[in-house]
Amino acid sequence: MDTNEPLTNGAGASEQDLQFMGQAILEAKKAEAIGEVPIGAVIVRDGKVIAASHNLRERDQEATAHAELAAITEACRKTGSWRLEDTVLYVTLEPCPMCAGAILQSRIPRVVYGARDPKAGCVDSLYRLLDDPRFNHRCDVTEGVLADECGALLTNFFRGIRKRRKAEKQARRALESEQGE
Amino acid sequence: MDTNEPLTNGAGASEQDLQFMGQAILEAKKAEAIGEVPIGAVIVRDGKVIAASHNLRERDQEATAHAELAAITEACRKTGSWRLEDTVLYVTLEPCPMCAGAILQSRIPRVVYGARDPKAGCVDSLYRLLDDPRFNHRCDVTEGVLADECGALLTNFFRGIRKRRKAEKQARRALESEQGE
Repeated sequence: MDTNEPLTNGAGASEQDLQFMGQAILEAKKAEAIGEVPIGAVIVRDGKVIAASHNLRERDQEATAHAELAAITEACRKTGSWRLEDTVLYVTLEPCPMCAGAILQSRIPRVVYGARDPKAGCVDSLYRLLDDPRFNHRCDVTEGVLADECGALLTNFFRGIRKRRKAEKQARRALESEQGE
Repeated sequence: MDTNEPLTNGAGASEQDLQFMGQAILEAKKAEAIGEVPIGAVIVRDGKVIAASHNLRERDQEATAHAELAAITEACRKTGSWRLEDTVLYVTLEPCPMCAGAILQSRIPRVVYGARDPKAGCVDSLYRLLDDPRFNHRCDVTEGVLADECGALLTNFFRGIRKRRKAEKQARRALESEQGE
């Protein structure tokens, strides 16, 4: 199985897809504002957002606090059902194995994501968990929707971290050299 | 990659492993008692259970309410950290992609499981997600611990469901035939 061949691409996105990915990006920005890795997700049913969430791993010190998983939990609570059959999940980054698995568990029929995650993505990059006939569910996938914007959020976030770390290191060295004089 | 070759087997289990798998089985029985698919999990640190949970998908109508995921969430809360670095997870059934992914996310270093899940297992059966050098974490795995007991719980549960369904069908038919006379 060639995992580098995309299932589909952003070209298959509708106006509505762009709008809802925009809302997922707003969620990602909420994460960024509190120093979390900026990833956001929304779940839509009948053209309405029924759940919206963002990554909160550091704030909550919770390994499972990914945007998609939190949105799925919220959508199940709101609909009163573990089957999210008439929904679409929008997420700014390609889901990891845990979130791809949660998508399968909740029977979400369609997933739209922004940027690929070459390090942990399990929809196209490392595995194609949402397109495996051995599981009891498969999804339609549209990838690459507002991918540049979704990816830039992450790139800028990690660049900012590296910059701060470098500045801290330089300040520490300057202090040490001053004390040494 | 041959996914049918076990990473390890129950033979590598210690007395302590048997004891903690016994506690995971007790959790599975709690699920069974309320009509849930009987799967249980415990997380152990320094020889003590710090989190114990069982499948609650139907009761909670929550797609993510698997034993392992709930135990991981609880263990993060109790330890105040998303990194469960000095822990062992015991679970009666081979983890699904969602739970295997949550294990990777929480950096659990060792997983002990009972029965294999040929339909959705992602540790040995369909994928080897816990042994993929491309992810930023890998686990030691011991499988097959009290596997017969863990598997029998599931087999009996599903046999019971089939039996009830058959009896209901026969009762319905008898009623219809009576009404038709």
